[in-house]
Amino acid sequence: MEKDILKKGERLDDLHRNGYMLIQNPEKFCFGLDAVLLSGFAKAGADDIVMDLCSGNGIVPILMEAKTDCSQFVGVEIQPDNVDMARRSIQYNKLDDKIFMECCDLKELGKLYNSHQFDVVTCNPPYIKAQSGAVNSADGKAIARHEIMCTLNDVFEAAAKMLRYGGRLYMVHRTNRLADIFELSKKNRLEPKAMRFVHATIDKAPSMVLIEFAKDGKPHLEVEKPMIIYAAGNVYTKEVNDIFYN
Amino acid sequence: MEKDILKKGERLDDLHRNGYMLIQNPEKFCFGLDAVLLSGFAKAGADDIVMDLCSGNGIVPILMEAKTDCSQFVGVEIQPDNVDMARRSIQYNKLDDKIFMECCDLKELGKLYNSHQFDVVTCNPPYIKAQSGAVNSADGKAIARHEIMCTLNDVFEAAAKMLRYGGRLYMVHRTNRLADIFELSKKNRLEPKAMRFVHATIDKAPSMVLIEFAKDGKPHLEVEKPMIIYAAGNVYTKEVNDIFYN
Repeated sequence: MEKDILKKGERLDDLHRNGYMLIQNPEKFCFGLDAVLLSGFAKAGADDIVMDLCSGNGIVPILMEAKTDCSQFVGVEIQPDNVDMARRSIQYNKLDDKIFMECCDLKELGKLYNSHQFDVVTCNPPYIKAQSGAVNSADGKAIARHEIMCTLNDVFEAAAKMLRYGGRLYMVHRTNRLADIFELSKKNRLEPKAMRFVHATIDKAPSMVLIEFAKDGKPHLEVEKPMIIYAAGNVYTKEVNDIFYN
Repeated sequence: MEKDILKKGERLDDLHRNGYMLIQNPEKFCFGLDAVLLSGFAKAGADDIVMDLCSGNGIVPILMEAKTDCSQFVGVEIQPDNVDMARRSIQYNKLDDKIFMECCDLKELGKLYNSHQFDVVTCNPPYIKAQSGAVNSADGKAIARHEIMCTLNDVFEAAAKMLRYGGRLYMVHRTNRLADIFELSKKNRLEPKAMRFVHATIDKAPSMVLIEFAKDGKPHLEVEKPMIIYAAGNVYTKEVNDIFYN
Protein backbone atom coordinates (compact mmCIF):
# COMPACT_ATOMS: atom_id res chain seq x y z
CA MET A 1 0.00 0.00 0.00
CA GLU A 2 2.71 2.47 0.99
CA LYS A 3 4.69 1.78 -2.16
CA ASP A 4 1.64 2.41 -4.34
CA ILE A 5 0.86 5.82 -2.88
CA LEU A 6 4.30 7.34 -2.21
CA LYS A 7 6.36 9.17 -4.82
CA LYS A 8 10.15 9.62 -4.77
CA GLY A 9 11.44 11.39 -1.64
CA GLU A 10 8.11 11.08 0.21
CA ARG A 11 7.34 9.38 3.51
CA LEU A 12 4.18 8.42 5.36
CA ASP A 13 3.86 9.99 8.84
CA ASP A 14 1.55 8.77 11.59
CA LEU A 15 -0.86 11.50 12.78
CA HIS A 16 -1.81 9.57 15.96
CA ARG A 17 -5.50 10.24 15.23
CA ASN A 18 -7.98 7.66 13.92
CA GLY A 19 -5.04 5.79 12.38
CA TYR A 20 -4.62 8.65 9.87
CA MET A 21 -1.33 8.99 8.00
CA LEU A 22 0.07 11.98 6.11
CA ILE A 23 2.27 11.96 3.03
CA GLN A 24 5.13 14.40 3.40
CA ASN A 25 8.29 15.23 1.50
CA PRO A 26 11.10 16.45 3.78
CA GLU A 27 12.73 18.16 0.77
CA LYS A 28 9.67 20.36 0.52
CA PHE A 29 7.74 21.34 3.65
CA CYS A 30 6.69 19.24 6.63
CA PHE A 31 3.99 20.35 9.05
CA GLY A 32 5.06 21.68 12.43
CA LEU A 33 3.69 22.27 15.88
CA ASP A 34 1.84 25.36 14.62
CA ALA A 35 -0.48 23.35 12.34
CA VAL A 36 -1.21 20.86 15.12
CA LEU A 37 -2.01 23.64 17.63
CA LEU A 38 -4.22 25.38 15.07
CA SER A 39 -6.21 22.16 14.53
CA GLY A 40 -6.77 22.01 18.30
CA PHE A 41 -7.64 25.71 18.68
CA ALA A 42 -10.15 25.91 15.81
CA LYS A 43 -13.76 25.03 16.58
CA ALA A 44 -16.19 23.55 14.07
CA GLY A 45 -19.58 21.92 14.60
CA ALA A 46 -21.25 19.01 12.82
CA ASP A 47 -23.07 21.22 10.32
CA ASP A 48 -20.26 23.67 9.64
CA ILE A 49 -18.55 24.04 6.29
CA VAL A 50 -14.85 24.75 6.73
CA MET A 51 -12.30 26.24 4.35
CA ASP A 52 -8.58 25.89 5.06
CA LEU A 53 -6.43 28.52 3.30
CA CYS A 54 -2.71 27.92 2.56
CA SER A 55 -3.56 24.28 3.16
CA GLY A 56 -0.21 22.78 2.05
CA ASN A 57 -0.26 19.01 2.45
CA GLY A 58 -3.75 19.17 3.99
CA ILE A 59 -2.65 18.64 7.59
CA VAL A 60 -5.18 21.04 9.17
CA PRO A 61 -8.42 19.69 7.61
CA ILE A 62 -7.26 16.07 8.08
CA LEU A 63 -6.57 16.67 11.80
CA MET A 64 -9.78 18.67 12.25
CA GLU A 65 -11.82 15.89 10.63
CA ALA A 66 -10.41 13.57 13.29
CA LYS A 67 -10.85 15.99 16.22
CA THR A 68 -14.26 17.56 15.52
CA ASP A 69 -17.73 16.44 14.43
CA CYS A 70 -17.33 18.45 11.26
CA SER A 71 -17.24 16.60 7.97
CA GLN A 72 -17.18 19.21 5.21
CA PHE A 73 -13.78 20.72 4.43
CA VAL A 74 -12.29 22.52 1.44
CA GLY A 75 -8.52 22.91 1.45
CA VAL A 76 -7.14 25.68 -0.76
CA GLU A 77 -3.51 25.43 -1.88
CA ILE A 78 -1.65 27.15 -4.71
CA GLN A 79 1.23 24.68 -5.21
CA PRO A 80 0.15 21.72 -7.43
CA ASP A 81 2.65 19.26 -5.91
CA ASN A 82 1.30 19.97 -2.42
CA VAL A 83 -2.28 19.51 -3.66
CA ASP A 84 -1.25 16.22 -5.26
CA MET A 85 0.28 15.00 -1.98
CA ALA A 86 -2.75 16.17 0.04
CA ARG A 87 -5.15 14.40 -2.35
CA ARG A 88 -3.24 11.15 -2.00
CA SER A 89 -3.27 11.48 1.84
CA ILE A 90 -7.03 12.11 1.74
CA GLN A 91 -7.47 9.03 -0.45
CA TYR A 92 -5.22 6.92 1.80
CA ASN A 93 -7.28 7.90 4.85
CA LYS A 94 -10.58 7.36 2.98
CA LEU A 95 -11.67 10.95 3.48
CA ASP A 96 -12.57 11.72 -0.14
CA ASP A 97 -16.20 12.43 0.72
CA LYS A 98 -15.26 14.84 3.53
CA ILE A 99 -12.22 16.82 2.39
CA PHE A 100 -11.83 18.39 -1.03
CA MET A 101 -8.52 19.96 -2.08
CA GLU A 102 -8.80 22.95 -4.41
CA CYS A 103 -5.67 23.90 -6.35
CA CYS A 104 -6.00 27.65 -6.73
CA ASP A 105 -4.69 31.07 -5.81
CA LEU A 106 -6.69 32.32 -2.82
CA LYS A 107 -6.96 35.71 -4.54
CA GLU A 108 -9.03 33.95 -7.24
CA LEU A 109 -11.44 32.14 -4.89
CA GLY A 110 -14.31 34.43 -5.90
CA LYS A 111 -14.27 32.81 -9.37
CA LEU A 112 -14.80 29.32 -7.90
CA TYR A 113 -16.99 29.86 -4.81
CA ASN A 114 -19.92 32.07 -3.97
CA SER A 115 -19.25 34.59 -1.20
CA HIS A 116 -20.24 34.08 2.44
CA GLN A 117 -20.89 30.33 2.23
CA PHE A 118 -18.42 29.12 4.83
CA ASP A 119 -18.95 28.96 8.60
CA VAL A 120 -15.29 28.57 9.51
CA VAL A 121 -11.99 29.42 7.83
CA THR A 122 -8.65 28.15 9.14
CA CYS A 123 -5.23 29.37 8.04
CA ASN A 124 -1.58 28.73 8.84
CA PRO A 125 -0.23 31.38 6.47
CA PRO A 126 3.34 32.23 5.40
CA TYR A 127 4.79 34.07 8.39
CA ILE A 128 7.51 36.21 6.89
CA LYS A 129 6.88 39.47 5.08
CA ALA A 130 8.12 39.37 1.50
CA GLN A 131 11.24 41.38 0.84
CA SER A 132 12.22 41.67 -2.80
CA GLY A 133 15.14 39.45 -3.77
CA ALA A 134 15.58 37.94 -0.32
CA VAL A 135 14.25 34.50 -1.23
CA ASN A 136 13.95 32.19 -4.22
CA SER A 137 10.33 32.47 -5.30
CA ALA A 138 10.39 29.09 -7.09
CA ASP A 139 11.21 27.24 -3.87
CA GLY A 140 8.25 25.44 -2.30
CA LYS A 141 9.58 25.88 1.23
CA ALA A 142 10.04 29.60 0.64
CA ILE A 143 6.46 29.90 -0.66
CA ALA A 144 5.17 28.24 2.51
CA ARG A 145 7.22 30.53 4.77
CA HIS A 146 7.36 33.89 2.98
CA GLU A 147 4.60 36.09 1.61
CA ILE A 148 5.59 35.41 -1.98
CA MET A 149 2.34 34.13 -3.49
CA CYS A 150 0.02 35.89 -1.03
CA THR A 151 0.26 38.62 1.57
CA LEU A 152 -1.39 38.69 4.97
CA ASN A 153 -3.95 41.11 3.58
CA ASP A 154 -4.75 38.67 0.74
CA VAL A 155 -5.45 36.00 3.38
CA PHE A 156 -7.83 38.26 5.31
CA GLU A 157 -9.55 39.41 2.12
CA ALA A 158 -10.13 35.80 1.04
CA ALA A 159 -11.38 34.76 4.49
CA ALA A 160 -13.73 37.75 4.71
CA LYS A 161 -15.10 36.98 1.25
CA MET A 162 -15.73 33.29 2.01
CA LEU A 163 -17.12 33.64 5.58
CA ARG A 164 -20.77 34.19 6.37
CA TYR A 165 -21.82 36.95 8.79
CA GLY A 166 -20.62 35.86 12.26
CA GLY A 167 -18.40 33.13 10.79
CA ARG A 168 -15.05 32.46 12.43
CA LEU A 169 -11.50 32.61 11.18
CA TYR A 170 -8.82 30.72 13.15
CA MET A 171 -5.21 31.62 12.47
CA VAL A 172 -1.80 30.76 13.86
CA HIS A 173 1.00 33.28 13.35
CA ARG A 174 4.17 34.71 14.82
CA THR A 175 3.77 37.15 17.68
CA ASN A 176 5.95 39.76 16.00
CA ARG A 177 3.33 40.26 13.25
CA LEU A 178 0.48 40.86 15.71
CA ALA A 179 0.08 44.59 15.08
CA ASP A 180 -0.08 43.97 11.31
CA ILE A 181 -2.54 41.15 11.92
CA PHE A 182 -4.97 43.31 13.90
CA GLU A 183 -4.69 46.29 11.56
CA LEU A 184 -5.38 44.18 8.46
CA SER A 185 -8.05 41.94 10.00
CA LYS A 186 -10.03 44.98 11.16
CA LYS A 187 -9.67 46.54 7.71
CA ASN A 188 -11.32 43.38 6.37
CA ARG A 189 -14.12 43.35 8.98
CA LEU A 190 -12.65 40.34 10.79
CA GLU A 191 -12.74 41.28 14.47
CA PRO A 192 -10.22 39.58 16.81
CA LYS A 193 -12.30 37.90 19.54
CA ALA A 194 -9.93 35.47 21.31
CA MET A 195 -6.20 35.02 21.39
CA ARG A 196 -3.81 32.60 23.00
CA PHE A 197 -0.04 32.95 23.17
CA VAL A 198 2.17 29.88 22.85
CA HIS A 199 5.28 29.80 25.05
CA ALA A 200 8.02 27.14 24.86
CA THR A 201 8.24 27.35 28.66
CA ILE A 202 6.46 29.57 31.13
CA ASP A 203 9.45 31.85 31.72
CA LYS A 204 9.96 32.50 27.99
CA ALA A 205 8.42 35.10 25.72
CA PRO A 206 5.80 33.60 23.39
CA SER A 207 6.77 33.03 19.77
CA MET A 208 3.42 31.94 18.34
CA VAL A 209 -0.12 33.16 18.74
CA LEU A 210 -3.48 31.52 18.02
CA ILE A 211 -6.27 33.96 17.13
CA GLU A 212 -10.02 33.66 16.58
CA PHE A 213 -11.73 36.35 14.50
CA ALA A 214 -15.45 36.89 13.93
CA LYS A 215 -16.77 38.27 10.66
CA ASP A 216 -18.41 41.62 11.53
CA GLY A 217 -17.94 40.86 15.26
CA LYS A 218 -18.21 43.43 18.03
CA PRO A 219 -14.82 44.71 19.28
CA HIS A 220 -13.91 42.81 22.45
CA LEU A 221 -10.85 40.60 22.69
CA GLU A 222 -10.34 37.82 25.24
CA VAL A 223 -6.67 37.08 25.80
CA GLU A 224 -6.72 33.53 27.15
CA LYS A 225 -4.27 31.92 29.56
CA PRO A 226 -0.88 31.10 28.04
CA MET A 227 -0.30 27.76 26.31
CA ILE A 228 2.95 26.22 27.52
CA ILE A 229 4.59 23.61 25.28
CA TYR A 230 7.26 22.01 27.46
CA ALA A 231 6.86 20.99 31.10
CA ALA A 232 10.53 20.04 31.45
CA GLY A 233 13.26 19.42 28.87
CA ASN A 234 11.58 17.96 25.78
CA VAL A 235 8.57 16.65 27.72
CA TYR A 236 5.29 18.17 26.54
CA THR A 237 2.83 19.62 29.03
CA LYS A 238 -0.30 17.52 29.46
CA GLU A 239 -2.32 20.01 27.41
CA VAL A 240 0.00 19.90 24.39
CA ASN A 241 0.46 16.15 24.70
CA ASP A 242 -3.33 15.78 24.55
CA ILE A 243 -3.52 17.97 21.44
CA PHE A 244 -1.02 15.63 19.76
CA TYR A 245 -2.15 12.25 20.98
CA ASN A 246 -5.54 12.22 22.72
CA MET B 1 2.99 70.21 57.11
CA GLU B 2 0.27 67.68 56.25
CA LYS B 3 -2.48 69.90 57.54
CA ASP B 4 -1.27 72.80 55.43
CA ILE B 5 -1.29 70.89 52.17
CA LEU B 6 -4.32 68.60 52.46
CA LYS B 7 -7.88 69.65 51.61
CA LYS B 8 -11.05 68.05 52.92
CA GLY B 9 -11.34 64.31 52.18
CA GLU B 10 -7.72 64.00 51.06
CA ARG B 11 -4.95 61.81 52.43
CA LEU B 12 -1.20 61.60 51.94
CA ASP B 13 0.05 58.23 50.62
CA ASP B 14 3.64 56.99 50.82
CA LEU B 15 5.07 56.13 47.37
CA HIS B 16 8.02 54.16 48.86
CA ARG B 17 10.39 56.03 46.52
CA ASN B 18 12.77 58.84 47.58
CA GLY B 19 10.41 59.58 50.47
CA TYR B 20 7.84 60.89 47.99
CA MET B 21 4.22 61.22 49.09
CA LEU B 22 1.09 61.60 46.96
CA ILE B 23 -2.08 63.48 47.78
CA GLN B 24 -5.15 61.41 46.97
CA ASN B 25 -8.86 61.68 47.54
CA PRO B 26 -10.56 58.27 47.92
CA GLU B 27 -13.88 59.87 46.94
CA LYS B 28 -12.38 60.67 43.57
CA PHE B 29 -9.79 58.38 42.00
CA CYS B 30 -6.78 56.68 43.58
CA PHE B 31 -3.94 55.26 41.52
CA GLY B 32 -3.75 51.50 41.03
CA LEU B 33 -1.28 48.82 40.11
CA ASP B 34 -1.55 49.83 36.45
CA ALA B 35 0.04 53.26 37.02
CA VAL B 36 2.84 51.72 39.08
CA LEU B 37 3.57 49.09 36.42
CA LEU B 38 3.51 51.74 33.69
CA SER B 39 6.08 53.82 35.59
CA GLY B 40 8.32 50.73 35.71
CA PHE B 41 7.78 49.75 32.06
CA ALA B 42 8.41 53.21 30.55
CA LYS B 43 12.00 54.13 29.71
CA ALA B 44 13.36 57.68 29.75
CA GLY B 45 16.95 58.93 29.68
CA ALA B 46 18.58 61.90 31.37
CA ASP B 47 18.06 64.24 28.40
CA ASP B 48 14.56 63.12 27.49
CA ILE B 49 11.52 65.33 27.72
CA VAL B 50 8.47 63.34 28.82
CA MET B 51 4.77 64.10 28.53
CA ASP B 52 2.23 62.14 30.58
CA LEU B 53 -1.29 62.18 29.13
CA CYS B 54 -4.38 61.58 31.30
CA SER B 55 -2.05 62.34 34.19
CA GLY B 56 -4.67 62.44 36.96
CA ASN B 57 -3.01 63.09 40.32
CA GLY B 58 0.43 63.02 38.68
CA ILE B 59 1.39 59.54 39.90
CA VAL B 60 3.24 58.48 36.71
CA PRO B 61 5.65 61.44 36.32
CA ILE B 62 6.31 61.52 40.09
CA LEU B 63 7.23 57.81 40.13
CA MET B 64 9.25 58.12 36.90
CA GLU B 65 11.21 61.05 38.32
CA ALA B 66 12.18 58.76 41.19
CA LYS B 67 12.96 55.70 39.04
CA THR B 68 14.76 57.21 36.03
CA ASP B 69 17.48 59.81 35.36
CA CYS B 70 14.93 61.93 33.57
CA SER B 71 14.06 65.31 35.03
CA GLN B 72 11.74 67.04 32.56
CA PHE B 73 8.10 66.04 32.73
CA VAL B 74 4.85 67.66 31.63
CA GLY B 75 1.67 66.11 33.02
CA VAL B 76 -1.52 66.81 31.05
CA GLU B 77 -4.83 66.50 32.87
CA ILE B 78 -8.28 67.84 32.00
CA GLN B 79 -9.89 67.84 35.49
CA PRO B 80 -8.91 70.98 37.45
CA ASP B 81 -9.27 69.35 40.88
CA ASN B 82 -6.86 66.58 39.86
CA VAL B 83 -4.39 69.14 38.56
CA ASP B 84 -4.68 71.04 41.84
CA MET B 85 -3.94 67.85 43.82
CA ALA B 86 -1.03 66.93 41.55
CA ARG B 87 0.49 70.41 41.85
CA ARG B 88 0.35 70.22 45.64
CA SER B 89 2.00 66.76 45.57
CA ILE B 90 4.73 68.12 43.29
CA GLN B 91 5.26 71.03 45.66
CA TYR B 92 5.30 68.74 48.72
CA ASN B 93 7.98 66.54 47.10
CA LYS B 94 9.98 69.61 45.95
CA LEU B 95 9.71 68.63 42.28
CA ASP B 96 8.48 72.00 40.97
CA ASP B 97 11.52 72.42 38.71
CA LYS B 98 11.11 68.94 37.21
CA ILE B 99 7.40 68.28 36.77
CA PHE B 100 4.92 70.75 35.33
CA MET B 101 1.18 70.02 35.40
CA GLU B 102 -0.80 71.40 32.46
CA CYS B 103 -4.56 71.67 32.92
CA CYS B 104 -5.91 71.16 29.43
CA ASP B 105 -7.83 68.93 27.05
CA LEU B 106 -5.33 66.73 25.21
CA LYS B 107 -7.22 67.46 21.98
CA GLU B 108 -6.11 71.11 22.40
CA LEU B 109 -2.41 70.42 23.06
CA GLY B 110 -1.44 71.81 19.66
CA LYS B 111 -2.45 75.28 20.87
CA LEU B 112 -0.02 75.09 23.81
CA TYR B 113 2.95 73.06 22.55
CA ASN B 114 4.85 72.86 19.27
CA SER B 115 4.60 69.49 17.55
CA HIS B 116 7.25 66.75 17.79
CA GLN B 117 9.11 68.19 20.79
CA PHE B 118 8.79 65.25 23.18
CA ASP B 119 11.03 62.16 23.34
CA VAL B 120 8.65 60.07 25.42
CA VAL B 121 4.90 60.06 26.07
CA THR B 122 3.30 57.96 28.80
CA CYS B 123 -0.41 57.32 29.23
CA ASN B 124 -2.73 55.38 31.52
CA PRO B 125 -5.93 56.26 29.64
CA PRO B 126 -9.59 55.63 30.44
CA TYR B 127 -10.09 51.95 29.66
CA ILE B 128 -13.78 51.68 28.90
CA LYS B 129 -15.34 52.67 25.62
CA ALA B 130 -17.91 55.40 26.03
CA GLN B 131 -21.50 54.33 25.66
CA SER B 132 -24.03 57.11 25.62
CA GLY B 133 -25.93 57.46 28.85
CA ALA B 134 -24.20 54.60 30.65
CA VAL B 135 -22.22 56.81 33.01
CA ASN B 136 -22.46 60.16 34.73
CA SER B 137 -20.19 62.43 32.74
CA ALA B 138 -19.75 64.87 35.63
CA ASP B 139 -18.25 62.18 37.86
CA GLY B 140 -14.46 62.37 38.21
CA LYS B 141 -14.08 58.62 38.67
CA ALA B 142 -16.14 57.99 35.54
CA ILE B 143 -13.98 60.43 33.55
CA ALA B 144 -10.86 58.55 34.62
CA ARG B 145 -12.35 55.18 33.69
CA HIS B 146 -14.57 55.80 30.66
CA GLU B 147 -13.81 57.49 27.35
CA ILE B 148 -16.00 60.49 28.17
CA MET B 149 -13.58 63.39 27.72
CA CYS B 150 -11.26 61.65 25.26
CA THR B 151 -11.32 58.53 23.10
CA LEU B 152 -8.46 56.11 22.52
CA ASN B 153 -7.97 57.70 19.11
CA ASP B 154 -7.68 61.15 20.72
CA VAL B 155 -4.89 59.80 22.94
CA PHE B 156 -2.96 58.37 19.97
CA GLU B 157 -3.49 61.57 17.96
CA ALA B 158 -2.14 63.69 20.80
CA ALA B 159 0.84 61.38 21.40
CA ALA B 160 1.70 61.30 17.67
CA LYS B 161 1.50 65.08 17.51
CA MET B 162 3.75 65.62 20.53
CA LEU B 163 6.37 62.90 19.83
CA ARG B 164 9.48 63.46 17.72
CA TYR B 165 10.35 60.98 14.94
CA GLY B 166 11.40 57.72 16.68
CA GLY B 167 10.00 58.90 20.01
CA ARG B 168 8.31 56.34 22.26
CA LEU B 169 4.82 56.06 23.68
CA TYR B 170 4.28 53.80 26.71
CA MET B 171 0.74 52.78 27.53
CA VAL B 172 -1.05 50.48 29.94
CA HIS B 173 -4.48 49.21 28.96
CA ARG B 174 -6.89 46.31 29.24
CA THR B 175 -6.20 43.28 27.07
CA ASN B 176 -9.72 43.26 25.64
CA ARG B 177 -9.05 46.56 23.83
CA LEU B 178 -5.88 45.31 22.14
CA ALA B 179 -7.26 45.04 18.62
CA ASP B 180 -8.64 48.60 18.84
CA ILE B 181 -5.29 49.75 20.25
CA PHE B 182 -3.26 48.35 17.35
CA GLU B 183 -5.69 49.53 14.70
CA LEU B 184 -5.75 53.11 16.04
CA SER B 185 -2.05 53.34 16.90
CA LYS B 186 -1.09 52.26 13.38
CA LYS B 187 -3.53 54.78 11.94
CA ASN B 188 -1.63 57.43 13.91
CA ARG B 189 1.82 56.18 12.81
CA LEU B 190 2.61 54.81 16.27
CA GLU B 191 4.01 51.33 15.63
CA PRO B 192 3.72 48.76 18.45
CA LYS B 193 7.28 47.56 19.17
CA ALA B 194 7.11 45.73 22.51
CA MET B 195 4.32 44.36 24.64
CA ARG B 196 4.05 42.67 27.98
CA PHE B 197 0.98 40.97 29.41
CA VAL B 198 0.23 41.21 33.12
CA HIS B 199 -1.24 38.10 34.76
CA ALA B 200 -2.52 37.92 38.35
CA THR B 201 -1.02 34.41 38.51
CA ILE B 202 0.71 32.33 35.88
CA ASP B 203 -2.28 30.05 35.26
CA LYS B 204 -4.66 32.99 34.70
CA ALA B 205 -5.48 34.92 31.55
CA PRO B 206 -3.86 38.38 31.51
CA SER B 207 -6.07 41.37 32.24
CA MET B 208 -3.63 44.20 31.58
CA VAL B 209 -1.06 44.88 28.90
CA LEU B 210 1.93 47.23 28.77
CA ILE B 211 2.84 48.44 25.27
CA GLU B 212 5.72 50.44 23.79
CA PHE B 213 5.10 52.23 20.48
CA ALA B 214 7.63 54.00 18.25
CA LYS B 215 6.66 57.06 16.21
CA ASP B 216 7.10 56.01 12.55
CA GLY B 217 8.75 52.74 13.66
CA LYS B 218 9.24 49.70 11.44
CA PRO B 219 6.59 46.97 11.95
CA HIS B 220 8.04 44.31 14.27
CA LEU B 221 6.53 43.52 17.65
CA GLU B 222 8.33 41.78 20.49
CA VAL B 223 5.93 40.09 22.88
CA GLU B 224 7.95 39.84 26.09
CA LYS B 225 7.70 37.20 28.79
CA PRO B 226 4.60 37.47 31.00
CA MET B 227 4.61 39.64 34.10
CA ILE B 228 3.14 37.75 37.02
CA ILE B 229 1.77 39.78 39.94
CA TYR B 230 1.23 37.24 42.72
CA ALA B 231 3.62 34.44 43.68
CA ALA B 232 1.20 32.99 46.23
CA GLY B 233 -1.94 34.36 47.87
CA ASN B 234 -1.43 38.12 48.19
CA VAL B 235 2.37 37.90 48.09
CA TYR B 236 3.87 39.81 45.17
CA THR B 237 6.44 38.16 42.92
CA LYS B 238 9.95 39.55 43.38
CA GLU B 239 9.67 41.48 40.10
CA VAL B 240 6.47 43.29 41.08
CA ASN B 241 7.68 43.83 44.63
CA ASP B 242 10.80 45.50 43.20
CA ILE B 243 8.68 47.75 40.99
CA PHE B 244 6.80 48.90 44.10
CA TYR B 245 9.56 49.15 46.65
CA ASN B 246 13.11 48.89 45.20
